[in-house]
Amino acid sequence: MSDWTEISGGITAPRGYQASGIVAGLKPSGAPDLALILSDVDAIAAGVFTTSQVRAACVDYCRQQLQARSSARAILCNAGQANAATGEQGWLDAVESSEVLAKALNIAPESVLLASTGVIGQRIKMDALKAAIPQLVAQASESGGEAASRAIITTDLVTKSIALETTFGDRPVRIGGISKGSGMIHPNMATMLGFVTCDAAVSPPLWQEMLSRATNRSFNQITVDGDTSTNDTLIALANGQSRTPAITGKGPEADQLEAMLTAVCEHLAKAIARDGEGATCLIEVQVSGAPDEPDARQVAKTIVGSSLVKSAIFGHDPNWGRIAAAAGRAGVNFKQEDLRIQLGEFVLMEKGQPLPFDRAAASQYLTQASAGEYLKSDTVLIQVKLGNGSGVGKAWGCDLSYDYVKINAEYTT
Amino acid sequence: MSDWTEISGGITAPRGYQASGIVAGLKPSGAPDLALILSDVDAIAAGVFTTSQVRAACVDYCRQQLQARSSARAILCNAGQANAATGEQGWLDAVESSEVLAKALNIAPESVLLASTGVIGQRIKMDALKAAIPQLVAQASESGGEAASRAIITTDLVTKSIALETTFGDRPVRIGGISKGSGMIHPNMATMLGFVTCDAAVSPPLWQEMLSRATNRSFNQITVDGDTSTNDTLIALANGQSRTPAITGKGPEADQLEAMLTAVCEHLAKAIARDGEGATCLIEVQVSGAPDEPDARQVAKTIVGSSLVKSAIFGHDPNWGRIAAAAGRAGVNFKQEDLRIQLGEFVLMEKGQPLPFDRAAASQYLTQASAGEYLKSDTVLIQVKLGNGSGVGKAWGCDLSYDYVKINAEYTT
Repeated sequence: MSDWTEISGGITAPRGYQASGIVAGLKPSGAPDLALILSDVDAIAAGVFTTSQVRAACVDYCRQQLQARSSARAILCNAGQANAATGEQGWLDAVESSEVLAKALNIAPESVLLASTGVIGQRIKMDALKAAIPQLVAQASESGGEAASRAIITTDLVTKSIALETTFGDRPVRIGGISKGSGMIHPNMATMLGFVTCDAAVSPPLWQEMLSRATNRSFNQITVDGDTSTNDTLIALANGQSRTPAITGKGPEADQLEAMLTAVCEHLAKAIARDGEGATCLIEVQVSGAPDEPDARQVAKTIVGSSLVKSAIFGHDPNWGRIAAAAGRAGVNFKQEDLRIQLGEFVLMEKGQPLPFDRAAASQYLTQASAGEYLKSDTVLIQVKLGNGSGVGKAWGCDLSYDYVKINAEYTT
Repeated sequence: MSDWTEISGGITAPRGYQASGIVAGLKPSGAPDLALILSDVDAIAAGVFTTSQVRAACVDYCRQQLQARSSARAILCNAGQANAATGEQGWLDAVESSEVLAKALNIAPESVLLASTGVIGQRIKMDALKAAIPQLVAQASESGGEAASRAIITTDLVTKSIALETTFGDRPVRIGGISKGSGMIHPNMATMLGFVTCDAAVSPPLWQEMLSRATNRSFNQITVDGDTSTNDTLIALANGQSRTPAITGKGPEADQLEAMLTAVCEHLAKAIARDGEGATCLIEVQVSGAPDEPDARQVAKTIVGSSLVKSAIFGHDPNWGRIAAAAGRAGVNFKQEDLRIQLGEFVLMEKGQPLPFDRAAASQYLTQASAGEYLKSDTVLIQVKLGNGSGVGKAWGCDLSYDYVKINAEYTT
C-alpha cells in the first residue's frame, strides 16, 4: 500500500478518460492551442484557483460551477488569450464556450469546466474556437493525453506530464496529470495550469481536501519570479472507473490516494520550476526542525524565492550568507544559534556560525547541476535545519539568469 | 508652519552635532570605512532595526541599549565586516568597540550605539578599529557630515545625505540624515543603514513613534530585491540644541517635526532605491482609493517589487497587465472592475479594462526616464487607483536589469 509505479499515458492513463489537443488558430504561432479532457462519466471535480483580485473569466466561471456542484465531465482549455481583464464580454465568452462544447458532446453545459492562458486583456478568438470544437471532440481518445499536454503550453520549453499507478485490493488505481507555465512567463502571457485525472472513487469533500493539501505541498511551494497569475487553475477529476470501493474517510486507501495525488502534483510543480524563464537548474530547498509544517514550507519558499540566492546559484557561488539571511527574514521564529545549512554534501553553517568548507568543490557542485540533464542530475539541493521542531517542508525554484531579464525585458513595444 | 528649506551639511547641519569618517583599514579596498556621529549633549535616541531572525551583534546591542535608556551621545559605524553570524565573540567585539570609543570620548559606554555593514560571518577587524579610534575622535567636527556619509557606504555608487530646516517661533530647527545600501547589495555584503540627527527637543516616546511612522512611509516602502539584511538599522537622535520648547504631545510643532522627519527618511529611502544594483531609473508607485493606508502601501510595494514589472520597465515596455496582476496578488481586497492604472501621463486601464493608448509614446516615456539625471528626471511614475477608499500610499524601487544579475552572480568563489 505504500508505493506506486510510474506509467505512461499522462492524463489519459486513468481508466475512463479521453483527451485531445489541436491547432484552433488562437495562437499567432500556429502551435496547438486548444485542449479537451473528457471523462466517460460524471467525475468528482475539485479545484484550486488564483487568489488574485484580478482574475480571468474562466476562474470565476469554474468557482461558480464547483460551488453549485462538485462534478464535471469535461475541461476545455485554450491558449493564446487569457480572457482576463475582459469584463462582461469575457464572462459571456466563457459561458458561450462551455455551451458550444456541451452541445458538441451532448452533455449539460454545467458539466464543462474552463481554463485559459495567454495575453491578459485579450478576449478568446471565439470564431476560431467555435469552428474548432467539432475537430477537438472528434479527436478525443484514450491516447490523447500527450496531445492535450502540448496544446496547453505557451512559452514553456517542454510539456509536463505524469501518470502513477497503484492497486487497491487487486484493482489498479491511477492518477495522471499535466501542467504548464512558470509564473507569468511571457510579456503579458500568464498562468500556471494543472489538470489531474484519477479513476478512484472518492467522496467530493475528501477529494477537495486532498487536492488542497497536495497543492500546499507542491504548486504553492514553487516560485519562479514571485508573480501570481490572473488565471492560475488546478482542476482534479476522479471518475470512479477503477471500480474500487468508494473512499469516504480516513484509512489506508485514502492515505495512499492522497500520497499519490501529492506525488503527481509535486512532479508537475517541479517541472514548472525547472522550466522557469532562463533557468539553468532546479533548486530544491528542504527545511527541517521548524515549529510546524507551514513554518517549514514558509522558510523553504522564502529561500528558494530570494533573488540573491537565485543569482548566487546561477553564478555557482556557495553563498551561505544569503541562504541564512533569507531564512532569517521568512517571518518564522527560530534561534540563529541553532541554524544549520547544507548545500549538496557540503555543510556550510552549523549552530549559526559559518564552517570552513571546500569552496572550490562546492562551486563545482553548482556548476555540475546547471550542466545536468533535465530533471535528473540538474537539481541543487539546499538543506536547512532551524532547530528541534518536528516541522518539515520543501520548496522548488530555479536560478536567476541573464536570460530571465532578457525574456522579460526584450519585448518590442 | 507647513514647510521647510533644504540646506547643506547633512547630519551635522542640526545644532550640536559633530561627525567624522576615516580610513581605518577595515575594507580591503582602502576606502573610508569608519564613521562617528557625536552629539554635544545627551540626545534622545530612537531606533528601528531588522526583523530578521539572523541578526548582527550591533543590532542586538542597540536594541538592548535603547530598551534600557532612550538616549545616546555617539554612534559608531564600521563598514567592511557585518559582524553577523559571529556568535558570542561577535557580541564581545561589539561591547569592546563601544568601550574603546567611550573611553576616547570620555563618556559612558552606555551612551554609544553601534552599526556594522559588510561581509556576513566576518568579525570586525578589532585591532584596526581600536587603532583608528583616536584619529576618528580627533577629526570629528561640525562639518564632518559628508565624511561620515562616505565612510558608511559599501558598493553604493553615491553617498546619500540631506538636511532640512524650519523654524519654531523664531528659532531654526533642523533634521539631517545619511543612509547607505540597497538591500543586500554585494555578494555577502549586507545592509541598509540610516542615521538621522535633529536638534529639536522632543520626548522619547514621541520621537520613537514619529520614527516608526516615518519608517513605515519610507524605508519600509522601498525594495530592490526583496531581501532584508541581517544588519538593517535606522537610528535617529534629537538633542534639543535648537533651544526650542520641548515637544511632548500633539500639536502643530509635533506635526511639522514628524512631516520633516518623514521627508528626510523618504529622501534617503528613495536615494537607496535609485542606487539599487544595476538600476537605470527610480520607480515610484502611488496607490489611492484603498480601504486604508497600510493596504495602499502594501499594493504599492507589491507592484514596485514585482520582477515582471521591474524587467518590463527596464525593457521600456508599458505593460499594464503586469501592473494589474501585481496589484491583484497583493493580498488587498478590491474590485477588479474599479481598477485604474496610469503610467506617467498615459492612462492604461480604466474600470478594470485596458484602454487604447499611444504605446510608442508610453515606451518613449520609459526610455527617457532611464536616460534621466540621477534623482531628477529619472523617475517612472505609476499611479494605481483601487476604488473609492481613502487609503493612499507610495513605494519606491528600481528596474531589474542585466547588471543586477551580473553584480550578484559574478562573484568569483
